[in-house]
Amino acid sequence: MSTSERLIESTRELLWERGYVGTSPKAILERSGAGQGSMYHHFKGKPDLALAAIRRTAEEMRATAEGVLSGPGTPYERVEAYLRRERDVLRGCPVGRLTMDPDVIVDEALRAPVDETLDWLREQLAQIVEEGKESGEFAPSLDGEEIAATAVATVQGGYVLARASGSPAAFDAAVRGLLALLAPPDAIDH
Amino acid sequence: MSTSERLIESTRELLWERGYVGTSPKAILERSGAGQGSMYHHFKGKPDLALAAIRRTAEEMRATAEGVLSGPGTPYERVEAYLRRERDVLRGCPVGRLTMDPDVIVDEALRAPVDETLDWLREQLAQIVEEGKESGEFAPSLDGEEIAATAVATVQGGYVLARASGSPAAFDAAVRGLLALLAPPDAIDH
Repeated sequence: MSTSERLIESTRELLWERGYVGTSPKAILERSGAGQGSMYHHFKGKPDLALAAIRRTAEEMRATAEGVLSGPGTPYERVEAYLRRERDVLRGCPVGRLTMDPDVIVDEALRAPVDETLDWLREQLAQIVEEGKESGEFAPSLDGEEIAATAVATVQGGYVLARASGSPAAFDAAVRGLLALLAPPDAIDH
Repeated sequence: MSTSERLIESTRELLWERGYVGTSPKAILERSGAGQGSMYHHFKGKPDLALAAIRRTAEEMRATAEGVLSGPGTPYERVEAYLRRERDVLRGCPVGRLTMDPDVIVDEALRAPVDETLDWLREQLAQIVEEGKESGEFAPSLDGEEIAATAVATVQGGYVLARASGSPAAFDAAVRGLLALLAPPDAIDH
């Protein structure tokens, strides 16, 4: 791996573990094994390096979600696949967690990939819900964009509950609750 | 206000704005106007002061939620009142946001009030959902604890969506989506 790659990958790990405020340039150098000179050769500073790291994490999250959402199955099954996809729940979401980082939120450039990724995810889910309304799987009274927001919020908030309790059980309960509410009438007792 | 009070209140503000990792003893002293000596006279250090601050924030959140949950109305209306209660959405939840703080999560004492408060909230909501199942407002197939987890997760994740997009609209959409799913059959088109 090139030094520039090592710097980006170390920053991604640190942002996930400790957030932006909690990640010092010194910690990035230590983890990547890069020297200060080479960090400033490749990147203008912590915000510039963090932006490269956040963009890559956002792209990966998008690719993972895309794989699940565009997979086989009915609209309900694809929403279910998204909600139930394998996650390291106690680590939280590497993208969503950045919204609790005050220095990310006030920086338009750093916030942009976070906003775009969650927005894209909501659009994909909204489309699937609309498909499900057409096929009769979801009630016609539901609003695709609202249900999509509820689904993404349930996942993001599920991480909060899991990390508070130190167990993934609360995440799973939140997902099961939403799936029970979304289930087509003839599937409720399955 | 006594010096001890000023220290606690300043710490509460800073924890909400910048998290635990992002709050230095120096920032607490500056905001409270207290001297270093008086901080260490009243508290053993940052963790001790943060614990007092987190406990008070947790108590306040519990009192606010209790006021809404034990208010008048049917079970659905009380869940709705909880989901729709006035919030400064873009600031996020002062309790939930601490779960993204690595130094809070690894410290049993600091995590305890966060866990207890969210747990208590889920229990209250679970009871209300069970009441609603008995009265026929909610489907008998629903699990009170799961729906409660979904409701709290929707709120906590709603903050994530709102802060990512810089607007409370995404929070409101997530709440409306959940309410549409929870609505008693004869209220769906209201």
